[in-house]
Order: sequence, then C-alpha cells, then structure tokens
Amino acid sequence: MAGNCNTSASAGPCELNRDVCQLKELVRSQGKQLGRLVRHMKMGCKKPPRESTLKGLNPCLRCLQHDVLYHLGMDTGTMNFPKIFGDVRFVCMGGTPERMERFAHMIMKELGLKLHPATKLRNMAEDGHRFALYKVGPVLCASHGMGCPSISILLHELLKMMHHAKCQDPVFIRIGTCGGIGIEPGTVAITSEALDGMLHPYHETIVQGKVVQHCSKLDQCLTQELLSLANPCEDEFDTVVGKTVCTNDFYEGQTRLDGAFCDYTNPSKNAYLQGLQGQGVINFDMESTAFAALTSRAGVRSAVVSITIINRMEGDQILASPESLSEWEKRPQELVARYIRKAMLGQDEDSDTDEQDVVPPCAGADIEN
Amino acid sequence: MAGNCNTSASAGPCELNRDVCQLKELVRSQGKQLGRLVRHMKMGCKKPPRESTLKGLNPCLRCLQHDVLYHLGMDTGTMNFPKIFGDVRFVCMGGTPERMERFAHMIMKELGLKLHPATKLRNMAEDGHRFALYKVGPVLCASHGMGCPSISILLHELLKMMHHAKCQDPVFIRIGTCGGIGIEPGTVAITSEALDGMLHPYHETIVQGKVVQHCSKLDQCLTQELLSLANPCEDEFDTVVGKTVCTNDFYEGQTRLDGAFCDYTNPSKNAYLQGLQGQGVINFDMESTAFAALTSRAGVRSAVVSITIINRMEGDQILASPESLSEWEKRPQELVARYIRKAMLGQDEDSDTDEQDVVPPCAGADIEN
Repeated sequence: MAGNCNTSASAGPCELNRDVCQLKELVRSQGKQLGRLVRHMKMGCKKPPRESTLKGLNPCLRCLQHDVLYHLGMDTGTMNFPKIFGDVRFVCMGGTPERMERFAHMIMKELGLKLHPATKLRNMAEDGHRFALYKVGPVLCASHGMGCPSISILLHELLKMMHHAKCQDPVFIRIGTCGGIGIEPGTVAITSEALDGMLHPYHETIVQGKVVQHCSKLDQCLTQELLSLANPCEDEFDTVVGKTVCTNDFYEGQTRLDGAFCDYTNPSKNAYLQGLQGQGVINFDMESTAFAALTSRAGVRSAVVSITIINRMEGDQILASPESLSEWEKRPQELVARYIRKAMLGQDEDSDTDEQDVVPPCAGADIEN
Repeated sequence: MAGNCNTSASAGPCELNRDVCQLKELVRSQGKQLGRLVRHMKMGCKKPPRESTLKGLNPCLRCLQHDVLYHLGMDTGTMNFPKIFGDVRFVCMGGTPERMERFAHMIMKELGLKLHPATKLRNMAEDGHRFALYKVGPVLCASHGMGCPSISILLHELLKMMHHAKCQDPVFIRIGTCGGIGIEPGTVAITSEALDGMLHPYHETIVQGKVVQHCSKLDQCLTQELLSLANPCEDEFDTVVGKTVCTNDFYEGQTRLDGAFCDYTNPSKNAYLQGLQGQGVINFDMESTAFAALTSRAGVRSAVVSITIINRMEGDQILASPESLSEWEKRPQELVARYIRKAMLGQDEDSDTDEQDVVPPCAGADIEN
C-alpha cells in the first residue's frame, strides 16, 4: 500500500497528519452512508408508515402527551415505540410467563434468528409486574394470565402499543390450554367461533352502568390457514376445528364436580356437556371471547389455537403428568411457528435467515448498533 | 464428670462400650419423649380437629381419592395437607407475586417469626406456574392475578386446601391496589360493600347455561376491626371505608379515556364518576365481588383493604413514581399486620414470639424436625 501512495515528496509530518485525519473522517462518513444504503436495501423502497393499520381505536389517544402502559411498565415518553416495536408483525399470547418464554426461544430457532452472544432475551414488561413480554424479531410473545379481565388489560395495552409503534397489519394468535369436549388430551384445537357461557358469540362488558356486547369474531381465513398447516400424516397429534365456550370460572363455570362448591349433579353435568358437543363445541377456555372481540374491534386478524389437556367427557381433574403437559404444549406452538415461518419466508424468499438478528438494526437495543 | 462415674472397677472395655451404647439409646429415646411433651404443652390439650370449619362446600370432595389443585401445583395424594397447612389462620392475597413475597417477609418480622438459617421462603405454588404462595407460620400469602376469573380459581383451590387441611376459622383478607373515586392516592380504602358494574351487591356467574348470582357479602365486624386499627393521629396516611365497584375491565369498565377503545365522552365519564361518589362508592377494583361471594359462601370471614394509586376524579393514567407506589403498598399491609398481630397475641399473650419458627414443629418442612 505504502508503495502506491501518491503523497507529495515535500510534505512534512504536519501535512501528513492532517491528511490522515481528513481521510479517517472520510472513511467514517462513507461507512455511515454504506450502512444506511444496506439498511435501505433491506427495508425496500417503502417510506416508513405514518400510522398503524389498526382501526376504530380511541380518538383520545392522539391527545395524550405520553401514554403510560401501566401493566406493561412502559411509557411512550421514555421509549421510542416505532423504533422498538415498529417491526412487529405477529403477537402471540398464552397463559403463563414460562410457556411464552419457551415459545420465544422456539420461534427464535424456527426463524433462524440469533441473539448477540453478549445478550439474552429479557422480559420487557418486567417493570409492570403483571405480564411477561418477549420480542423475537417481528414476533411478540406475551403472557396474559387467566380470564377475560386479565387478557383484556393486556390487549388494551398491546393494541395501544401497535398504534404508537405504527405497526402494519399485525396478526394476533392466542396459544392456549383448554379442556376438550369429546376430544382427547394432546389434541390441538383451533377455535372457529368464540362463545360466552350463554353460547352467545359476543364478549359482554359493563360500561358506565350499561351492558355492552361486542362481537367475538375470529378471522376465518387465518383459522383455515392454520388448519392447512397441520400435517395429519406426519404430525404426532390431531388438529381439529370447532367452537369454544369461554367461561368466567374454571370450576362451576365449566361444570366441574371438583370445585370448592358444586350445586349440580353428575347427570346434569353430562347432559350439559353432551348438549354442547351436539352444538359443535369442542372445548372450554377462559379468554377467547375477550381476545376475539378486542382484536376484531381494532380490525386485527386473530386466531385461537389451544392444546387440550383433558377430555371433559371423561373427568374433571387434570391428571396428565408434567412430562405429557410439557410435550403437548409444543404442539400448538409448532403449528403457529409453521404459520409465522411461512408468512415470513413467503414475503422474503431470498432472505438469508441465518444472517438475521433477533434485534434488527433499525429496531433494536443499542448494544446491536 | 469422669471423677463421679460409678462404673464397676472390674468392667472391661467391652462392657464399657455396651454401657455407652445403651446410655446413648436411652438419651435418644428420652429426647424424643421430651420433644413430644414440649409439643403437647405448646399445642394445649385440644384434640386435633376432625373437620375444617368451612361451610357449604362441595359434597363431592369427600368422594375424591386425591384432589389435584392444578393451578397451585399441589395434590392431596403427595402432600400431607393437615400437617403442612393445618395451622393456617390468615389467608392474605394481592395482585402480584412480588408484592405478596414482600408481605410475607414483612409479616414474618411483625410476628417475630424467623427462618432456619439454612432455609428461605419458597413459592409453594411454583409448580402450578400461575400463582405465588408463601407460608409464614399461620399466615398464607397468595398472589391472585387480575380479575374475578383469576381470583375465583385461586379461591376455589385455597378453600379446598383449607378443607383438606382441616383449618379452623381462617380469615381471608385481600390486600389490593385500587383507583380511588374522590380519595387521594396513598389513602387506604376498606371495602364496606362489593358491588358489580351494575351496582348490584353480588357476583354473577354462568353455570350450565344459567345465570347464577351469589351475594358479595364481606364481614362487617372484621371491616370495623380493621378500621379501628388505623391510627389517624400517628399514621402517615388516611384510612377510609366505603363501597367498592368491581369491574371486569380496567379501561372501558372503569370509564377511562385512555384505553385502546373509548366510545364515550369526558362529560359522561365525569357524570358517571360523580354519580358513583354520590352513592358512597370510594373506589374501583377488579376482584372484590368474586372474593366476597366465594368466601362468604364458605362461611369464611373476609375483608378487602386496598391502597389507592390514583384519584379517578382527577385523571386516568397511573403517573405515581415507582418510589411512591412502593411506599404506598406498605400501608394496607401495615394495617393487616396490626390485625394479625393483635389476633395472634390476644389469643396467646404469654407466647414468646422471639422463640417461634416460621415452620412450626408440627406443621413444617422436614429440615426443622
């Protein structure tokens, strides 16, 4: 290199030093430009969106200076939502923090994403003390606790997050556990319709002392797409589609005989369950109506995929071993991972997934930049 | 000691060894007898109870060979409930695992209980992955998640635990957080009456497709007793009593303007809150009707003591600092600790609490025996 150097023979050390400084500055500036170009090529020619694609949201949100998502322990005043969450395309949720952490690691592997060796996944909702929230590339993995009130708090705050982050067409999927009605433990149940305890297809709340009903609509195309990804010949499990009855209580609400209270009989229980089966109901859960109603109000595509941990036609107590429960929980996760993988690769067929990071350059932790 | 030894001068090493072995056996046997006598003196002359004092429980519970408390990760088949939980007299519950762990440590100090230096408090419901449960002497400290469905699962399983453990007159207290209506953040609010969103004093569920209402009754004597333990001259906080409206949603259900959805106006919100205030309502929560209904059905005395984290007449967003929230959360805990301390010392005035262990000899971990 030194032999090709075209510096003037008369240049002294001061001039050489100045040249070196100028060249270093030029290299730094060109490096930045190169980075921007590579990023631009990766992102395509699209301009960053001005708004999220969510519909029907609270008009008052525009008037808030900051928005504190209290139960997630986050604040738009101290976090750059578009930068951190702007790339989210899939929001997956399930009951417990541990299950959703395992799902986050599984989806990371499935999508060929990798963490920087100096980092590990962090529960981003840690400061809220209520939910767990992991982000793996374009996938958010959240725990929602038990029951409609709990998931409704999470959904209000996640939908607001999508809005503030200007997310485009996010898909919400609940990956739950459920009690089957006439289907065997270990079966994956996809919800065609979420019904309340009166078998109405809506989620009922009370607002300012008045009963309000919102249609608990799930996306039928998404449901069919998820079903099409089941592989009856190769999967070690069955996948079925049917109606889900969402209850506000696990014991009396699901006509169990083993709760602290029980004012009904075994025959009336059996008659009730058979009646449900006759109407196409395949399982009970405790979140699907609120999940369906809140997502559909925002114009968000959503689906419920659950693992059956008991056949309620045969008993009430959950007697499956921890090993079986652990094995079964992977099944709906596997189906959802196939969907996400297909959606991701379908859109970006040339992408070399081995090269991608969990935290992309445009939406990540500072340590990656 | 050797100089007083009365052994025969002619005894050889074999005889001496035999004597030593026999004496050691005698010392061991007498030690066991002494332990039993001390335990008997501590327990008094009462026979262990045959049944818990809970009323109206599910008659089918008698027919269960084992009872799996699924969400607590416990099973009567593998745990000795009377031995482990038989001494429980106070069941305290609140929203988050962290808060209830802090309360467990606080009550341990308040009651002068101590852990064996080789142990630490353990979340006994860890295997269930849903709730946290700590036991400190006669006090159980449980987290209940958010909303009536979540607390109803916990209550079904804790009431069954009390039943299986043959507990006597347990008192249940919810130590919650709440939104105040016309009361300042930092105020302790004791619930006189738990009302649903329609202002009815009951908890409504759906059982086998039929609406069922259970009276959400709290113990008025317990409420007054808790209020009497507030010390307006010395406490750094106010304690007030009034009605609580229990909602199934944090945002629209509590007429907030900052949810993902909002189909009402600021004036209608203000009119609604003022109407509630006019009817003696002092706060919103999301668990009190289920808590009151399920405990009163079992004939269990119960109360709700909450810390106000916002005055809803002045706003919707929770803007209090983590330091304030942390300081305030101690206030209802302090009141409940006074009650437990009084109840414990009142019944056992001569007890030397400094000598007691968190895990008593008759109901503890093996390490203590």
